[in-house]
This record gives sequence, structure tokens and C-alpha cells, in this order.
Amino acid sequence: MTLALDPAAQDLLFREARTVGSFSDEPVTDEQIQAVYDLMKYAPTAFNQTPLRITLVRSEEARERLVAHMSEGNQPKTRTAPLVAILSADNEFHQELPTLFPHFPQAKDVFFSERPTREESAKVNGALQAAYFIVGIRAAGLAAGPMTGFDFAAVQKEFLDDDHTPLMIVNIGKPAGDAPFPRSPRLAYDEVVTTI
Amino acid sequence: MTLALDPAAQDLLFREARTVGSFSDEPVTDEQIQAVYDLMKYAPTAFNQTPLRITLVRSEEARERLVAHMSEGNQPKTRTAPLVAILSADNEFHQELPTLFPHFPQAKDVFFSERPTREESAKVNGALQAAYFIVGIRAAGLAAGPMTGFDFAAVQKEFLDDDHTPLMIVNIGKPAGDAPFPRSPRLAYDEVVTTI
Repeated sequence: MTLALDPAAQDLLFREARTVGSFSDEPVTDEQIQAVYDLMKYAPTAFNQTPLRITLVRSEEARERLVAHMSEGNQPKTRTAPLVAILSADNEFHQELPTLFPHFPQAKDVFFSERPTREESAKVNGALQAAYFIVGIRAAGLAAGPMTGFDFAAVQKEFLDDDHTPLMIVNIGKPAGDAPFPRSPRLAYDEVVTTI
Repeated sequence: MTLALDPAAQDLLFREARTVGSFSDEPVTDEQIQAVYDLMKYAPTAFNQTPLRITLVRSEEARERLVAHMSEGNQPKTRTAPLVAILSADNEFHQELPTLFPHFPQAKDVFFSERPTREESAKVNGALQAAYFIVGIRAAGLAAGPMTGFDFAAVQKEFLDDDHTPLMIVNIGKPAGDAPFPRSPRLAYDEVVTTI
């Protein structure tokens, strides 16, 4: 065993976990999402900027408006998932940096005074946190169905604002039945890793 | 307990894990990195595109060339870490899609025929995988020191090529002593999550 993480946790988070398209009726509670956030919030981002923002779509009315912006293949699962979350990046994250990065409060102005720089940083660090969120969902014993097949501009306009860029939409719940297709292959170690 | 993941694993991956700047002399082996990859490779990306590529900097000569491109504050830790990895995104990942996404092999041409689309997708999905890699490093009982303070253009030119965009550089090893400063605050749940 080269890994310190125990095999059950390896299975829960990585080996047995699958992207899911159909879910059981069991609801996903706010307490569960709070527990997920309270775990994944600790994982690292540059300057501790933590730009991820999460919009939980709970009302029937908002759900229907969101489904209309999903690609056709994503509509049925987005309509039926127990919970749907819009993940976005806050392009004005720098306003929080004096609090979030207290040992160098000047970072706000030294590195992030320009909006394009912030957008770029928020997108990449928001993506890191989206990955931590997916791992967190699995840590809660739930399955995640992350999707990028939707009209990004329409979702931003209808659910967010100019300062929040959509990253992905995630269906969340207990899986019903098997994953929609067998797990696809992964690249071999030597195709991914080189040594210099 | 709202989480299914056991508390020891929560601590190992999130609660107790810290970004580290100084490391013990204990080497990080190829077998350890292989075990990390063999875990994190399963985590999801769009179309299973898995664009992350990892360059392990093992030779003294390559390490010195890399240190020269790091920001001043990152130079000492990058010089002394047991292992340094350059994480990059493969902008030509679509060539692998017929293998990686076998139930829709047309994805290569339908979605990714344009280079700017591929670069964007590789950057975001590469960032997801960088996050999975950091979690994987911790799963191996190691500490990660992810950094974006370096000359991206110079690192791409000297260590990669036009088809590989640097994402971050990660120092890897067993920590020596405490983290360089106390853990910074995180945003409260209500500052991050809204419900509609």
C-alpha cells in the first residue's frame, strides 16, 4: 500500500464513484451541502482567494427556467435530480482578500487591480474549487453529475450577474441504478507523466 | 455525522492538510506518484478529456533552470522540495477522445475542432485535475505546495511546447515543521451559497 488513505475512502471518492445521470427520490438537505462546504472549503487556492460561489436551485420555478438553458441531453437529468447547483466564479473576489489573506493584505491591489487578471484567476481557482466540491459531494455519500452542456451566457444573465461567471452545473443526489455507460478508459501513467 | 467519509480521511485530505513550504529530506518516489495518478485519474472531466500532463523535475540541472523562472518568494522552497512537478494542460487532448470517450467518438470533431475552444476546455478541465492531483498527493500521505508565482511564458518555452500550457507548479514531500503561517480564514457558508 503506497497510499495513506484507506481503501474504503479511495473507493468512495475515486475508484467506485461515478458521474451519475439518474437519481433516487431521496432529497439532498441543506445540512448535507453545509457539511460538504465545511469540508471542501479548506482545500487550497492561490492567495486563498476561494472564488467559488454556489447557487442551489430549489424552487420548481427556477428549476424549469434552468432546464430550458441546458443542452437537450442534459435536460431530463437536470429536471429530475434531487438538487441542482450552479457553480460560478466571483470576479470580484479580491474585495475579500484583506480578510482571506491577512498576512499580505496588499495582494488585493498588487496582483488583482485589473479585471481581466481577476477573471482569469477566478476561473482557474474556481475550477479547482469545483473539483474539491465534487470530491466533497462524494465524501457526503452522494453522487455528482457535473455538466458543461448549457448556454453559459443565458445562465449568467438569468441566474447570476456580470461579476459571476458560470463554471459548471452539478446534479446531486443518491444514484438510482447503474451509471449510464461503463467507465471509459483512462490514459496510462506513461502517457501523462514525463520525467526530466 | 453528515459525511460518509471517515474523520481520519477528512483530516488527511482537507482539515489537517496544509500547503507546505519546507520539506523533510525524505525522497518522493516514482511509485508514490504512480499511486497518486492511479487514484486521481478516475475523477471526472468533461468528455473524459483528462488534459492534465505532469512533468516531474528530477535532475539537478532541470531544477536549477526551473528555479530561475520562479518568483523570488517561491525560489527557496522550489530549490529544496524533494520533488517538483510542472502541471500543464494538453491543448491537443482531442486526439485521444476517440479512445477516452468511446460512446461518442465524434466529440473530437463536433466539439473540439477549433483550437481556442480546446485551449479553454483544457485549461478548465486541467485545473479540475490539478485539484484532484493535490488531493491525491495528500492521499499518499504527502504535502503539496502548489504555486502560480512563476514566469508562465518562460516555463512553457523552456520545459513544454506550444501545445502544452502551464497550469501550476507543485512542490511535493513530507512537511518539515509547521506551515509557514496559521491557516487563513474561510468564507462562511452564507457568503458562498445562495438558494433560489
